[in-house]
Amino acid sequence: MTRTQVPVAARAANIEYAIRDVVVPATKLEAEGHEILKLNIGDPIAYPGLPTPKHMVEAYVEALRNGNNGYSPSYGISDLRSSIAQDERRKGWPARQEDIYVCHGVTEALQIIFAATLESGDEVLAPGPHYPPYMAYPQMYGAQTVEYKLNPNDGWKLDFNDIEAKMSDNVKLLVLINPNNPCGAVVGKDEIFRLLSIVRKYPNCIVIADEIYDGLDFTGEQKSVASLSPDVPVLVLNGVSKVFYAPGWRIGYLGIHDPKARLTLVRDGIERLLRSRLCASTPAQLGYLAGLDSDRTWMKSYSDKIIKQRNLCVDRIAKIEGLEVQSSGGAFYMFVKLLDDRWAENDKDFVLQLLHEEHVLVVHGSGFSAELGKGHFRVVYLPNIDVLNDAFDRIERFLIRHRG
Amino acid sequence: MTRTQVPVAARAANIEYAIRDVVVPATKLEAEGHEILKLNIGDPIAYPGLPTPKHMVEAYVEALRNGNNGYSPSYGISDLRSSIAQDERRKGWPARQEDIYVCHGVTEALQIIFAATLESGDEVLAPGPHYPPYMAYPQMYGAQTVEYKLNPNDGWKLDFNDIEAKMSDNVKLLVLINPNNPCGAVVGKDEIFRLLSIVRKYPNCIVIADEIYDGLDFTGEQKSVASLSPDVPVLVLNGVSKVFYAPGWRIGYLGIHDPKARLTLVRDGIERLLRSRLCASTPAQLGYLAGLDSDRTWMKSYSDKIIKQRNLCVDRIAKIEGLEVQSSGGAFYMFVKLLDDRWAENDKDFVLQLLHEEHVLVVHGSGFSAELGKGHFRVVYLPNIDVLNDAFDRIERFLIRHRG
Repeated sequence: MTRTQVPVAARAANIEYAIRDVVVPATKLEAEGHEILKLNIGDPIAYPGLPTPKHMVEAYVEALRNGNNGYSPSYGISDLRSSIAQDERRKGWPARQEDIYVCHGVTEALQIIFAATLESGDEVLAPGPHYPPYMAYPQMYGAQTVEYKLNPNDGWKLDFNDIEAKMSDNVKLLVLINPNNPCGAVVGKDEIFRLLSIVRKYPNCIVIADEIYDGLDFTGEQKSVASLSPDVPVLVLNGVSKVFYAPGWRIGYLGIHDPKARLTLVRDGIERLLRSRLCASTPAQLGYLAGLDSDRTWMKSYSDKIIKQRNLCVDRIAKIEGLEVQSSGGAFYMFVKLLDDRWAENDKDFVLQLLHEEHVLVVHGSGFSAELGKGHFRVVYLPNIDVLNDAFDRIERFLIRHRG
Repeated sequence: MTRTQVPVAARAANIEYAIRDVVVPATKLEAEGHEILKLNIGDPIAYPGLPTPKHMVEAYVEALRNGNNGYSPSYGISDLRSSIAQDERRKGWPARQEDIYVCHGVTEALQIIFAATLESGDEVLAPGPHYPPYMAYPQMYGAQTVEYKLNPNDGWKLDFNDIEAKMSDNVKLLVLINPNNPCGAVVGKDEIFRLLSIVRKYPNCIVIADEIYDGLDFTGEQKSVASLSPDVPVLVLNGVSKVFYAPGWRIGYLGIHDPKARLTLVRDGIERLLRSRLCASTPAQLGYLAGLDSDRTWMKSYSDKIIKQRNLCVDRIAKIEGLEVQSSGGAFYMFVKLLDDRWAENDKDFVLQLLHEEHVLVVHGSGFSAELGKGHFRVVYLPNIDVLNDAFDRIERFLIRHRG
């Protein structure tokens, strides 16, 4: 750069989002005419066989045609808030309509939570590895994300000793992603109770329960954190993107479980932030409403397809020298360990070389945690069996070739 | 509050958004069965006669039915970016597809701009009165908004002496809203040149050109700031909400005009922030695309209706003792002065009492600027002539009654 540059704010320069950052070289290869096998993005619609259900699409269509094209209330359309509250009550906590706030995806809910709770010097305790915005956003407000360990040798279970060691009065938010992205691990009742017993000692700490994948639990063990907390405040995150297969609609929500009425100020801050940014998409909210209010038996065939694909990945990985994986209990992710020394220290090189040589796109583990994700890569098991088989053939060939 | 409250972050507690804040008591009155005449919200769809054009709705419908329900590229669908760039080139600056970034409304574009440019202690110079987020958001990053005066006695023209006096190296962003919200004032070529000649002296200052109402200029004088700047960097804001009558779709954009290549770092920061938050609504982008790519002769009949309504308001206000207004040249707002002493110092009381006694909802001027908006209220002239007449009858009755 020869000219004087206008400075960028440090908070923006520091943002990294590995999942989208690796798309840049892949897009370049596609522009050159190469076909890429994409196992990189958690978007069911990007793969055949998992379309947004027709009754939801048609409700959205009707909303548009009926003229629902203006602004909606800042906290969400009341019918939708009411149906979401009902859904959360089914999960076991006494959600009222006024506890539910509809957002432009869970991402916006996170931005608002961090803006409403974090001051300079505060800490967010989040799992390592984790979904990148949990690291990217708190630093925007002068706060810091500290990772607690998921155990890579024991199904990515929570390391409670590590959590206890890292808890302090500075920790304002403790994050549980359940099922986890990128590992696919599911946390059950006993572990949630144990987690709550730790958080309970810190009266200014709120739990963020990111349950966006809760309908994609293949273990039957997944539980709503709010449903198990009689006292600790919980901010529940969920939406239309994953379980209802409509990520491009950008509708998520934040639910406030505040059993001891300690979030009055935080709630007021959240509401102020929500009002200032107008609203989420109006017609899309009505599409989501149809999904919540209709029969959901269709979900089983979708899950069954995804489970088959997961099983195939587990089988293939077991037979490939140089790879190892803890089976994924939910979501549509698994976090694969690279055993060869060459890649164990250089997972991003693995991803970029694999992309260029074999045209398979996965995301490097260090993008989900510099320390705890290193030497891994994330596989999205949404593609069809044929594509997954082809991808693992190529991965195997790649590993053999580079082993020499 | 009897229990210990978890603290809220100061940045969230400080947010005010007058336009939505006055809706709270109005909603309460509606719940009690009262019908409210709403002249408060800049949403054409909330009023009869200005629906989103059918060809745009149908393109959106087609997008949904064709399965465009997954994530889209973080900077926007390339066809849409290309059409927006073409539209901006028509306005006179050499926009390329890669200069256009599609956002969840202009609000998200603003959040991203502020996050990418402002450090603690920086200043944003914005018109007073102004659209509230220009005051609300910069403080979230430790920066401060300073108002420059619009002249209340001369058509809300820019006060250049005030701008010059307030410019400094601390000012990182200078905002021009053109046509202005809440005053409806339009800034022409000569004034833009004069503004640029001031900004030019401060090499780290970028102009924000909020041109979301540019297709609602009734004077013929409105000009794109970027088209008049051969050197000063300009961030252009626009979208589907106002001129294309689809605010509930939540699609806006940010265009980067960087003629001297000084925004390389800022652009990188903006792109990082955009990638971290995934994307704007995918199917809605295709609805907007249809609007941009189709014939726009329909816009004239919409504008004609709005102009008639504006003229009626001007006529009515001229005949009501206690009110005065500078005619609005664009957008669909006018900013009415309260002449009676009782209200001149208490515009919020005026708004709340008018709401409770006469069931007419307008927004208090001090919500758009504590100092420069005081003693005014904003009227949205989107309702039909009959509703506007009814509202002004009630306002007149109210003023007479309180004059005693």
